[in-house]
Amino acid sequence: MTTRSFAPRDGALVGVAEDTTVDELFAIVDRATAAAPTLAGVAPAERRGWLDAIATAVEAHADELVEVADTETALGAARLRSEVARVAAQLRFYGQVAADGGYLGVTIDPATATSPRLVRVNRPLGPVAVFGSSNFPFAFGVLGNDTASALAAGCPVVAKAHSAHLLTCLRLAEIARDALHDAGAPRDALSIVVGRETGARLVAVPGIKAVGFTGSQAVGLTLWRIANDRPEVIPVYAEMGTVNPVVLTAAAAPRLEEIAAGFVSSFTLGAGQFCTKPGLMFTPAGLRTAEAVAAALSAAELSTTMLTAAIADSVRTGCDELVAAGATIGARVRGTGQGWSAGAAVLTAPLSALKAGSRLLEEVFGPVAVVVEYADQVELTAGIRALQPSLTAAVFGGGPEDPDIPPVVATLAEKVGRVTVGDWPTGVAWTWAQQHGGPWPATSAPAATSVGAAALSRFVRPVAFQSVPDEALPTPERTATAASNPWRVPRRIDGRVVAP
Amino acid sequence: MTTRSFAPRDGALVGVAEDTTVDELFAIVDRATAAAPTLAGVAPAERRGWLDAIATAVEAHADELVEVADTETALGAARLRSEVARVAAQLRFYGQVAADGGYLGVTIDPATATSPRLVRVNRPLGPVAVFGSSNFPFAFGVLGNDTASALAAGCPVVAKAHSAHLLTCLRLAEIARDALHDAGAPRDALSIVVGRETGARLVAVPGIKAVGFTGSQAVGLTLWRIANDRPEVIPVYAEMGTVNPVVLTAAAAPRLEEIAAGFVSSFTLGAGQFCTKPGLMFTPAGLRTAEAVAAALSAAELSTTMLTAAIADSVRTGCDELVAAGATIGARVRGTGQGWSAGAAVLTAPLSALKAGSRLLEEVFGPVAVVVEYADQVELTAGIRALQPSLTAAVFGGGPEDPDIPPVVATLAEKVGRVTVGDWPTGVAWTWAQQHGGPWPATSAPAATSVGAAALSRFVRPVAFQSVPDEALPTPERTATAASNPWRVPRRIDGRVVAP
Repeated sequence: MTTRSFAPRDGALVGVAEDTTVDELFAIVDRATAAAPTLAGVAPAERRGWLDAIATAVEAHADELVEVADTETALGAARLRSEVARVAAQLRFYGQVAADGGYLGVTIDPATATSPRLVRVNRPLGPVAVFGSSNFPFAFGVLGNDTASALAAGCPVVAKAHSAHLLTCLRLAEIARDALHDAGAPRDALSIVVGRETGARLVAVPGIKAVGFTGSQAVGLTLWRIANDRPEVIPVYAEMGTVNPVVLTAAAAPRLEEIAAGFVSSFTLGAGQFCTKPGLMFTPAGLRTAEAVAAALSAAELSTTMLTAAIADSVRTGCDELVAAGATIGARVRGTGQGWSAGAAVLTAPLSALKAGSRLLEEVFGPVAVVVEYADQVELTAGIRALQPSLTAAVFGGGPEDPDIPPVVATLAEKVGRVTVGDWPTGVAWTWAQQHGGPWPATSAPAATSVGAAALSRFVRPVAFQSVPDEALPTPERTATAASNPWRVPRRIDGRVVAP
Repeated sequence: MTTRSFAPRDGALVGVAEDTTVDELFAIVDRATAAAPTLAGVAPAERRGWLDAIATAVEAHADELVEVADTETALGAARLRSEVARVAAQLRFYGQVAADGGYLGVTIDPATATSPRLVRVNRPLGPVAVFGSSNFPFAFGVLGNDTASALAAGCPVVAKAHSAHLLTCLRLAEIARDALHDAGAPRDALSIVVGRETGARLVAVPGIKAVGFTGSQAVGLTLWRIANDRPEVIPVYAEMGTVNPVVLTAAAAPRLEEIAAGFVSSFTLGAGQFCTKPGLMFTPAGLRTAEAVAAALSAAELSTTMLTAAIADSVRTGCDELVAAGATIGARVRGTGQGWSAGAAVLTAPLSALKAGSRLLEEVFGPVAVVVEYADQVELTAGIRALQPSLTAAVFGGGPEDPDIPPVVATLAEKVGRVTVGDWPTGVAWTWAQQHGGPWPATSAPAATSVGAAALSRFVRPVAFQSVPDEALPTPERTATAASNPWRVPRRIDGRVVAP
């Protein structure tokens, strides 16, 4: 078996690789397992140095990476160049989070007359399987958020190469393995495997201790089921596609044209291939929002070359399914007809069509969005509650004094992991307070995030040591809990937070 | 259908209650759902007041509660009186953890030139189903760790009454509902349902958003499967039975008699009905440890009246199964023959019998333990690695300088959630640093704890608010992130931990 990647612009074959055999797969996971104690045993700041080394190596190979990724994805050199810069910045950020040491959750209960000394420290789980997304070959790819946060937490990574950008994945892994080696880290802190069947098998290999995934609900839930069927069930952090509603309040009316143009930019960004793409806009009846969006779409300059033939097909069938579910096409931009071009569309649908099980409640991955009018707050609340949970939601209104914004923010917060006011949801900052994950089925672990500092917490498990003499604690725990606090980590001692 | 409870001392019928009907069940969850915004909307310190009120009410009814629980469990008035004191202390502790506010995980990224302001706060999930254990009618019962931590986090609780102490459960719920009402909280912050089938249905009711469970692997995994089959999958925090190994190093030899007596006390405490019961002791060959333990067991004064007829049966069949798996009875104390008396036993087994799938690797719930000799560190490590993961493990050696202790602690830390040195594992302190939960299948969510401050984290989900004006934030988030920090919560601001 082989895996092949193609050029979206003309459908030409670009790359071929042999699928990883079962024997090779077990050998790769064994080597990752052998590397695990080295990753777990060093100071977090040392892993930060390793992540910095990968970031620098990626930057040094930016031209080459952008070229191969552009051939494989057609996302364009400008976008891909900024994504390479982003993946390097992310790697450095997660290294900084590791070095901060807050993720260790160091907690110390000194002994009292009636209770023993307890020290509690988070420890890395071991090898993590990472499945990157089709739409972000760098930021959510082989060296993306999942990999960077797993390495930062001290876990080796076995990444599955994505067939939509196979050569990019293989090259990223080579660059990272060399950079790790040159930085004094085990090469096997990062490995890569190839093949669809291999990916399913990877989740079942006993040495794998957690899974990070970004992609479709169908594939995410398949991996989650495989993990649940293991003798040792492991956590699957699957971040899956969602509708991501946008709400306009009545006070948005004076800015309607600007908002319509912003909506079109956001839902067609990267040909609409964003997990945070705003797919459904609620607007007050009578604003003529749908017309404004249709006009903005017709006037926009777009790329609608999709990442894969399957995605291009699913945009077309998705639009048909939305129409069958009660939506009407408001405006359509046809594809170029070359390669995997799919066109873009905005549709309108009555609020009454948002019924349980309706296709309107599910994502169409690509440059497609639906506008739905609401008569009043009661209808709006019912409409939001009818949706499946999402990763994110956005509100556009009339400024800080707009009285309609607070109730909408409150309702949306029940349904998503991130609510924005006045910002389009497509951008996801990799910062301390980020939450990229929403209630089931937006993610398979709704309390987890796949972007931001808390992403490390997915790959650790606490162990408490009771009445264990300092000399008998494993090195990381002994260092993390030492009175001198050599790693300068935040801690909770005797119930009080102690900043370093 | 009815549920009945019996007196273990003579098998007499003690209590009968009608099982909750399906209609009643849905109505109860609806009322819990209606109460949820009230719990979520108040300051954590106000919920602390509610938990304090429940604690005080429980203490005020201690005599009555001890009497009914002793009739239903035969655990003895002294043990039960201390458990009532413990449950009150736990309720107050979780209230204190709520008021501390660290569980909110408040994180603030101020806006910069290139990135928006983000504030991230944990929010309660909503109604939690709690399944208490048979063996701790108070500490892990209707008002135990799961309930107290869920209420502290702002989640209403729907508890399932345990058939082993039905009347105790019903009375605890009455006392708590009255106390909540008197304290100004919704009565429906806590409800109770009755019936085995009702319990399974409870997990499937859409309004339930998480499950806390303490008990057997069979029941815990059944509930976990029900939750995974829901359209909206919810987390199940099942803390299940485990073997909990104890390791003696060679340097323990001079204290062998004392350790043997301590082991017998620990594995027969509460008739061995502890999830932290030490079930398997590794001892250096040649110490004659098995003989010392057998002698201590024969000399001990024990209660072997079990909580239920089924548990008494499973002790007898469990011993037979251990023998069939290669163990030999070292000493046996016969039961009284009255009521549900089961007897106690210590067995020996060769290390070679600890093979995958062996009954020796699984818990026998009750006053039964196995002693296994090891020749050297290599054998010991192999023996520990052959075990299923456990909640906890203990090491007894020769003091802080004993060179054999550190490698054993390190190996055990891979397998359990808590390692003790020189302490028997049976006691579980409810403190900040506690970790009560081990790798699968010790618990269904190995990074979670069902005891200690981190228990609240199981029942919350973070939401990030991006560029949301302060006035538009929901009240708890606005208060938690306010510059004045009125709740005095620890926060992370611009990447730095700020103690209150």
